[in-house]
Amino acid sequence: MTDVTTPTAPALTDDELQALHAHWRAANYLSAGQIYLLDNPLLREPLTAGHIKPRLLGHWGTSPGLNFCYTHLNRVIRARDQDMIYIMGPGHGGPSAVANAWLEGTYSEVYPEVSQDEAGMRRLFRQFSFPGGVPSHVAPETPGSIHEGGELGYALAHAYGAAFDNPGLVVACIVGDGEAETGPLAASWHSNKFLDPARDGAVLPILHLNGYKIANPTVLARIPEAELLALFEGYGHKPYVVSGSDPETVHREMAQTLDRAMDEIAAIRRAAREGHDGARPRWPMIILRTPKGWTGPREVDGLPVEGTWRSHQVPLSGVRDDPDHLAQLETWLRSYRPEELFDEDGRPVPQVRAQAPEGDRRMSANPHANGGLLLRPLVMPDFRGHAVPVEAPGTTFDEPTRVLGGFLRDVIVRNPDNFRIMGPDETASNRLGAVFEVTDRVWEAERLDTDEHLAPSGRVMEVLSEHLCQGWLEGYLLTGRHGLFNSYEAFVHIVDAMFNQHAKWLKVTRSLPWRQPIASLNYLLSSHVWRQDHNGFTHQDPGFLDVVMNKKPEIIRVYLPPDANTLLSVADHCLRSRDYVNVVVAAKQPAPNWLSMDDAVTHCARGIGIWEWASTDSGADPDVVLACAGDVPTLETMAAVDLLRRHLPDVRVRVVNVVDLMRLQPAAEHPHGLSDPEFDALFTTDRPIIFAFHGYPYLIHRLTYRRRGHGNLHVRGYKEEGTTTTPFDMVMMNDLDRFHLVMDVIDRVPELGGRAGHVRQHMMDERRRHRDHTREHGQDPADITGWSWPY
Amino acid sequence: MTDVTTPTAPALTDDELQALHAHWRAANYLSAGQIYLLDNPLLREPLTAGHIKPRLLGHWGTSPGLNFCYTHLNRVIRARDQDMIYIMGPGHGGPSAVANAWLEGTYSEVYPEVSQDEAGMRRLFRQFSFPGGVPSHVAPETPGSIHEGGELGYALAHAYGAAFDNPGLVVACIVGDGEAETGPLAASWHSNKFLDPARDGAVLPILHLNGYKIANPTVLARIPEAELLALFEGYGHKPYVVSGSDPETVHREMAQTLDRAMDEIAAIRRAAREGHDGARPRWPMIILRTPKGWTGPREVDGLPVEGTWRSHQVPLSGVRDDPDHLAQLETWLRSYRPEELFDEDGRPVPQVRAQAPEGDRRMSANPHANGGLLLRPLVMPDFRGHAVPVEAPGTTFDEPTRVLGGFLRDVIVRNPDNFRIMGPDETASNRLGAVFEVTDRVWEAERLDTDEHLAPSGRVMEVLSEHLCQGWLEGYLLTGRHGLFNSYEAFVHIVDAMFNQHAKWLKVTRSLPWRQPIASLNYLLSSHVWRQDHNGFTHQDPGFLDVVMNKKPEIIRVYLPPDANTLLSVADHCLRSRDYVNVVVAAKQPAPNWLSMDDAVTHCARGIGIWEWASTDSGADPDVVLACAGDVPTLETMAAVDLLRRHLPDVRVRVVNVVDLMRLQPAAEHPHGLSDPEFDALFTTDRPIIFAFHGYPYLIHRLTYRRRGHGNLHVRGYKEEGTTTTPFDMVMMNDLDRFHLVMDVIDRVPELGGRAGHVRQHMMDERRRHRDHTREHGQDPADITGWSWPY
Repeated sequence: MTDVTTPTAPALTDDELQALHAHWRAANYLSAGQIYLLDNPLLREPLTAGHIKPRLLGHWGTSPGLNFCYTHLNRVIRARDQDMIYIMGPGHGGPSAVANAWLEGTYSEVYPEVSQDEAGMRRLFRQFSFPGGVPSHVAPETPGSIHEGGELGYALAHAYGAAFDNPGLVVACIVGDGEAETGPLAASWHSNKFLDPARDGAVLPILHLNGYKIANPTVLARIPEAELLALFEGYGHKPYVVSGSDPETVHREMAQTLDRAMDEIAAIRRAAREGHDGARPRWPMIILRTPKGWTGPREVDGLPVEGTWRSHQVPLSGVRDDPDHLAQLETWLRSYRPEELFDEDGRPVPQVRAQAPEGDRRMSANPHANGGLLLRPLVMPDFRGHAVPVEAPGTTFDEPTRVLGGFLRDVIVRNPDNFRIMGPDETASNRLGAVFEVTDRVWEAERLDTDEHLAPSGRVMEVLSEHLCQGWLEGYLLTGRHGLFNSYEAFVHIVDAMFNQHAKWLKVTRSLPWRQPIASLNYLLSSHVWRQDHNGFTHQDPGFLDVVMNKKPEIIRVYLPPDANTLLSVADHCLRSRDYVNVVVAAKQPAPNWLSMDDAVTHCARGIGIWEWASTDSGADPDVVLACAGDVPTLETMAAVDLLRRHLPDVRVRVVNVVDLMRLQPAAEHPHGLSDPEFDALFTTDRPIIFAFHGYPYLIHRLTYRRRGHGNLHVRGYKEEGTTTTPFDMVMMNDLDRFHLVMDVIDRVPELGGRAGHVRQHMMDERRRHRDHTREHGQDPADITGWSWPY
Repeated sequence: MTDVTTPTAPALTDDELQALHAHWRAANYLSAGQIYLLDNPLLREPLTAGHIKPRLLGHWGTSPGLNFCYTHLNRVIRARDQDMIYIMGPGHGGPSAVANAWLEGTYSEVYPEVSQDEAGMRRLFRQFSFPGGVPSHVAPETPGSIHEGGELGYALAHAYGAAFDNPGLVVACIVGDGEAETGPLAASWHSNKFLDPARDGAVLPILHLNGYKIANPTVLARIPEAELLALFEGYGHKPYVVSGSDPETVHREMAQTLDRAMDEIAAIRRAAREGHDGARPRWPMIILRTPKGWTGPREVDGLPVEGTWRSHQVPLSGVRDDPDHLAQLETWLRSYRPEELFDEDGRPVPQVRAQAPEGDRRMSANPHANGGLLLRPLVMPDFRGHAVPVEAPGTTFDEPTRVLGGFLRDVIVRNPDNFRIMGPDETASNRLGAVFEVTDRVWEAERLDTDEHLAPSGRVMEVLSEHLCQGWLEGYLLTGRHGLFNSYEAFVHIVDAMFNQHAKWLKVTRSLPWRQPIASLNYLLSSHVWRQDHNGFTHQDPGFLDVVMNKKPEIIRVYLPPDANTLLSVADHCLRSRDYVNVVVAAKQPAPNWLSMDDAVTHCARGIGIWEWASTDSGADPDVVLACAGDVPTLETMAAVDLLRRHLPDVRVRVVNVVDLMRLQPAAEHPHGLSDPEFDALFTTDRPIIFAFHGYPYLIHRLTYRRRGHGNLHVRGYKEEGTTTTPFDMVMMNDLDRFHLVMDVIDRVPELGGRAGHVRQHMMDERRRHRDHTREHGQDPADITGWSWPY
């Protein structure tokens, strides 16, 4: 149980205390300065309205707590030569991260114009939340950060992701008590059941109870301490409480507690690595209870500010117009005694500078926080070795993800320490089971003899939380490793917001030359809208692609490989890529193999192409273009072509298959976009195009509305109809079935004559017949389930 | 602390035990029957392959546990005449809910063709997961359900939402141990800090540890019991453990524990309602640890099934082709002794029927689970009473959401027990603060003297979890009440998946006449992409509208009121509506008032219209149409019109403002869609249209690509550029600013002559000048911030 009354570590000396306090004061001064000051950065003159920014923006409330922890973490890094990074959950306290990076010198190394002197300090202050300057939050622009301070909830998941396979690293992670109310964060505490003390680094969570959110207290700050401790013991941690508002006392307690926690981490590691103990360790964590806006104005206009939600953003407002507030600001800023902290030139005095670790040990310069620096390319097996043989198109069947599983197995073998597969309990269900021939699922909780493929260490991580899967993987990628997230297509919407934030992060890093490229975030969406046999309408939602499409084109890639060999080729490409988000939608059920490996490689390299072997327009002048993207739409399109050949042999059909959805966009909009002549050459400008699409039809219109032939484009896709039913009934419910595609052709190709009307009626009859068969027999007719390309 | 060794309730008599067990056996039999049997429902003949469904679909694993709880809850309902509903987190165990509804007679009342006899049982079995039948999960089609068994994570939040303001109700909520790993569920346990024992109902969580997910054990089933108990004590509950696999023992323990929990709930209520005690109660919860697939096949093909993940879906597969499996299935089904449970006609025998409560007390028939039955329309204040006076358009300024706050205050006064506002700590920040004149924020955790507007009871619920806000509100609406969710626009993506599921639920209920309409789910997105002054790029994302647009048109409504009076009119409309999801995007910063209340009502009723007072085309024959949707785009459009009037007075401009985005869609696509002649009359078919849009520009293209004038449409909107900067710099970064709109006009209106080139250059100069001003002074120039409509 928790015991903070008997510290094992030696107490701070008075000198150490003084030095720590000076560093904290300096960081606090620089934080407040960023929020308020345009000029007079060292307060060499009396403060006037002209020195104050016209718009006061930023978040003071959390900054002193972030600074406090930074200062203390610096001490343990120096004392132990510890490799450590710092995740700031309350990253809206951007001034803190920037202040500390500047104190450590890193900021000036990365941004030389913000030099470590008075002129640099002026720039540092001015640029904060200023047009053309830096954002108010911890952001990609902030050295030492892998965690953006925007949307809350993912700090701890990022921290664990960073720790995996980094056995020497300690990831300190401040969790704000606001963020602690979010679902993803509440689930993240259980990440300790997935961390291997032998092979992974450690995470040291610091729950910062400053008590308030924007306008409310926080839940965890307002429950009895016994409940709070029980909660974190229940989460499997060993919690230590550090609490108070008197800096000296809290400095001493924090130092001792941190030493103790670091000692325990070291002991846990030692035990695990020397094989002493197989039990899941109870990792330490710290609960730090200090006032919000600590050291800021106590009271403003008669209302308490320090220690309340009123210090969340800017504690003193209207400073340019209110002489009282101006005076109060000056008193506040001078309370840090900047003249003791910075020398004549504006540089931090030696006592303060000495608090910072050196070189890469500085948290703002630690290469783990600029993961591209550490990125080793994956050692790639030859995906061609996993090819399924295809003598003739569409006559043999394979489960594409099962084939992919073999390839991923070989990736794992060659990359035992920097590649992981995350998923919410679906690796086997998604038929990637071959990976378990060479690895296990990570599981640090209790194991039973009947368990299969569970081990303290493994390349597969499964937890029924898409948030954790995504957060872990992001942390893993941002620290320079590789991975894949496999998920149900419908439920990847659970992480829409996280995807958005990661795509935004990548977009910003593109303009930061000092941020090295990292491995792409790869999604494999396999249990998709068209094949939810055990499930129903809730599991049918292909809209993630629409979310993805709103992000910057240079970041996003969407692939819809129609069969096993194309999936292999796409997967190889994605795993080699950098700084993208790749979304791959692929089948897990047996599906026809359309392309040999060579043809697949060629087709995937183009991303889109005419399937001449399936077309009947002799390479020119079709009456209609049948386009398709996605495994099920491709199958229905091919079956429709078969029907057309049989029933309307004179109709000249061109089949266009799309693997890389971005090819449809104008070249000006996306780097993969086809030029207009290329697009027109594929789709024609004047012939009807029936496009069978995996997702919501609007997406295709959105991508192509500028194309000349767009007026001729008719898209079939998911139109939000579904339930638990057979696969073919699903496509019929959404008018994506082969019969309907033939009807669409008949309705759009002019001058087909009377026979077409007859065929159309026949197609309607076929639909009815198949529906009736399904309703009666509970399964699709054999001519559907066994259909193959007969040519 | 937990103490299950000294039960206070009397033990079950043997007769009671027999009867409970018979009911459970009946429910289990019916559950398995639904998964397997096409015919021979009572096993009157030896089981043959022909009796077996061709596709075996469904989830057996969770069903016996769901049935076990259902049976026991029935007992306490009868014993106490308790008003109770049942939320099944593991709702993929659909057979269970259907089985129990059939046993209670409700199913046959709702669906008379599924009668409570042998023929009905045959239909019951056949229809399950069968084409044309019912979904495999608990779904809208299932009587007694307000919670779909698809995406996991929201059971407990729904349960609390149902309990709020229902003082007589107990909501029993089974949480599966898979679902318990999700973030939203992990956060939901803290909902007990927001439940008022005096005014609200109670939630009785039953955490069902059956130990496994699809292919893995669960975290909570694999931690030491001491940790498990600490966790739930830390969450503020009083946990009771019921554990075992011997039915008799577990029946007895469960009955006693349930009685004890119900006694405690009654005592807590009594104390709160008699004013004994102001402390937050420690509500009981039950941890039920029983085998997955309990009573199912122990072992199949030499591998353990009962008590493992292998029983998750269909424990015996290939039954039609494998005589051994068929025999095993028959043994299993006969183990329930159906001949003792159902009479000659196939009706449940009296002993089983007597277990069900009567009438509305049946959980499958409880009106709270068909909330529309209980829905009372809101007593609406006259929104016109809150109108801001508008003498002339665009010359006075108000904060629209502040005005709305006054209206919502009056809604609260008139509807003290069936209307709530949810939000992640942003009610004040979104300037709805007037509501605090008449109500408080609900807060059952500790309070301090310095707190403001926190009370055990209130109409506003704030927690920093969008998942909880959404889940609570869904539960509240589904049980027949009204509400509003206010959120940052960017972070409402956090609940994309929840929105999807709720919209799917509503879509399905439209085809179920017995489900009465419920109040719409209203979103107010106020801190939106264009005004994130304290924040940055992470907070800038208007893509929720794109997610919304993928759902069924009959469900979704999107409103972009440009000012205070239009917001009032829209809000009034939304609060009166039924079965929709309404998304309202509105400003909180001071913005020009464009329309008087009368004009606003007319404009909102039309949803789209020409602003003739702003146009210069004399009501006919414009050179260009300037369209706008959203507050900031409207402002920029009006300023652009002003610039055009000054600099190019001969250009005839038409201004079209869009409040109801759905008006843009074709009438065939959306019930609000304009007919083509109406659309053409507004937008012309041959003049350039410059559309200034709040969100991502593609959305407008997607809505309008079929319109004749679409080729002339040029949309400006958010193109994923942003940071912490001034409001005007934000619109400039995205080319949505007034100067750029003028340039767009010049680029698209032919034959403007040489002067236009001069004006275009001037606009570019203006952009540069404004950018430079912002970079230098840190704020927008006065001619931007103070701009008003000068006519």
